[in-house]
Amino acid sequence: MQRWSGLTADEMRLLETTFWSAGGSRHGMAEQLGYSRSKANAMIAGLLDQGLLAEAGLQASSGGRRAENLQINGTLGVLVGVDIGATSLDLALLRPDLTPLVQHAEPADVRQGPGVVLARVRCLLRELLGRQGLGADQVMGIGIGVPGPVNFGIGQLVNPPLMPAWDGFSIRDCLREDYAAPVFVDNDVNLMALGELWRLKRSLSNFLVIKVGTGIGCGIVCHGEVYRGAAGSAGDVGHICVDQEGPRCHCGNLGCVEVMAAGPAITRMAVQAVEAGESAMLAECLRDKGRIDAIDVGHAGRAGDAAANAIIQRAGSLLGQMLASVVNFFNPSHVFIGGGVTHIGPLFLAAVRQSVYQRSLALSTRHLEIQYTPLGAQAGLIGAGVLAMQETLKVRGVAP
Amino acid sequence: MQRWSGLTADEMRLLETTFWSAGGSRHGMAEQLGYSRSKANAMIAGLLDQGLLAEAGLQASSGGRRAENLQINGTLGVLVGVDIGATSLDLALLRPDLTPLVQHAEPADVRQGPGVVLARVRCLLRELLGRQGLGADQVMGIGIGVPGPVNFGIGQLVNPPLMPAWDGFSIRDCLREDYAAPVFVDNDVNLMALGELWRLKRSLSNFLVIKVGTGIGCGIVCHGEVYRGAAGSAGDVGHICVDQEGPRCHCGNLGCVEVMAAGPAITRMAVQAVEAGESAMLAECLRDKGRIDAIDVGHAGRAGDAAANAIIQRAGSLLGQMLASVVNFFNPSHVFIGGGVTHIGPLFLAAVRQSVYQRSLALSTRHLEIQYTPLGAQAGLIGAGVLAMQETLKVRGVAP
Repeated sequence: MQRWSGLTADEMRLLETTFWSAGGSRHGMAEQLGYSRSKANAMIAGLLDQGLLAEAGLQASSGGRRAENLQINGTLGVLVGVDIGATSLDLALLRPDLTPLVQHAEPADVRQGPGVVLARVRCLLRELLGRQGLGADQVMGIGIGVPGPVNFGIGQLVNPPLMPAWDGFSIRDCLREDYAAPVFVDNDVNLMALGELWRLKRSLSNFLVIKVGTGIGCGIVCHGEVYRGAAGSAGDVGHICVDQEGPRCHCGNLGCVEVMAAGPAITRMAVQAVEAGESAMLAECLRDKGRIDAIDVGHAGRAGDAAANAIIQRAGSLLGQMLASVVNFFNPSHVFIGGGVTHIGPLFLAAVRQSVYQRSLALSTRHLEIQYTPLGAQAGLIGAGVLAMQETLKVRGVAP
Repeated sequence: MQRWSGLTADEMRLLETTFWSAGGSRHGMAEQLGYSRSKANAMIAGLLDQGLLAEAGLQASSGGRRAENLQINGTLGVLVGVDIGATSLDLALLRPDLTPLVQHAEPADVRQGPGVVLARVRCLLRELLGRQGLGADQVMGIGIGVPGPVNFGIGQLVNPPLMPAWDGFSIRDCLREDYAAPVFVDNDVNLMALGELWRLKRSLSNFLVIKVGTGIGCGIVCHGEVYRGAAGSAGDVGHICVDQEGPRCHCGNLGCVEVMAAGPAITRMAVQAVEAGESAMLAECLRDKGRIDAIDVGHAGRAGDAAANAIIQRAGSLLGQMLASVVNFFNPSHVFIGGGVTHIGPLFLAAVRQSVYQRSLALSTRHLEIQYTPLGAQAGLIGAGVLAMQETLKVRGVAP
């Protein structure tokens, strides 16, 4: 990592712009940064010499013309992305341009606490690196997403409702035992938003990413940057009330959207439908598998089960009701919905849209797009990689 | 205005920073801008020579020491601030440091349309300028707040629910007939937020300003800038649902917070209390004045009228319920409440706070401050002045 030292603030800005523009041309970057072509070219030449930048997509001999596109040098090292969900664990090694080298997913239970979960993360990372023939010193930066509110400055969870044992635990210190690379921790939905922002090359400035899984959370992009709020809890939309006489949530209040429309609520409604004798298909599923999840309800719905479709409609409509408030307040250009519940299929999305368009003001929804996250299940891991690269550039850019 | 021409981008940045730091020291400004002391001093000397900057608070002869504090030169001209409310019209002429030279307020009815209201604005401005012995050419910039969603780029109202006749009307063109100065139009609550941001010298980055009057709106400051949303309708919180079985709102939906907790709702609840024989004090007020407004309900409440206090409690609690959703989503550090309803007094604020603290997540409210707008009724006019100055600097800074 010695190569990073001694860079000027302008050089770091150029590296960051290269990373975000993903194969941007020299000319475009000079323009973005407000540098003259000659200043930009001199800086680029220096960074190519130092092996920090590389030329991408070299055109086959067109008379010695200089390659136009640049990227962060792929030989600098790898980024580690970790996405810790409430019930899942995803890891990836990524190139500096965020191409995944290798990745791994397995079920997990975050409530087992940081000791158990992070021991597994460390073990899996050693395996993945080993499989690629890479050493710990080739890791440039580590980005980790967790399913709870994070104090981003210190990289610690604060009062996480789903994972109390993690409160104030230093994930950074734990991983520092294995790696010299910097470790950055953020809320999982913020990372999904960061991943989509990177995919979009910052072409959208104001959008939301909603994750619906065990809980419901929201990543916010405002003025072209991820917005984390005054205390790091921005986007905590799961506890917005959608029915003052609804069931009690683990937060203590009644009728939170999370307790009424997230994964466990869909399971609960499905079990109730079975108990009421309303769905032979869901009853069969419960008998065969011993449980029903949102994906099963989606299958039953697509196969024409009326009870399953009513559940999907209700969950989508409640989510849309919460979103309508958020859309009135924030007036985003796009809302991307991700998380396990998206496997339900298009009916869920249709119910969300209908509910938002009905409840939000016409001006807020006139150009509003509501769709599933384009990066799909990868959004969190890609976001973790973006975090690792972006923040590493910032940290390395600080004069020693 | 010739003095503005030929300035560099760096000089414009320095003028803008001077305006926002309101009497900032040379050293502090150089630091903020990332300039060396010598570069900053040379630029400042040039701008002093051109009469764009002036030295403020000159220290009485301390051995020839250079005055440390700078401001935009007060002799450059005046700013015009106009705050068009649903039922009121406020105008002010302000110095470049936003000290009001003269101001005027009168009742108005925005539904009379732009022809009537803007004719009155033009007439009043001529009067105010005349009274100060100023000509139209001494107006540097004009900022106007209106009670509806604005497409900020073109300065026009879009689909304003309270004032349909204003839809797409060009306020700019209308005022250009009298003034060569640039005209900027924004939503009234955005201007209150801008006013508070200026008062705070940008020391807070993420806060909200809620206006409760005839309607309910919200100004959003995010990452240190006013946030207007993808279509200019951000902060349209009046139509967030607080009771799915509540009364029908003019927007077509049921139980919007605006139809249940804004000024007209408070009047309606007061009249109902009179009709039900629940309040002798409010009955007397209705008999004497022929009407009851929020201020009357506040008076009755402070005099111990139980029905009045129940109304205040209910309106504050409903507003707090809406705010709880917004606080969960946005996690602001401060919420400032302004508008006519604030004249009700401390009981209303206490009810809002109680409702927010009960419904929002602990992490979002741990350091949250909820208070009445420190600039009070001036927030909108000051904000209009800030808009006029800030945007004029931007416009003038563009090379001809």
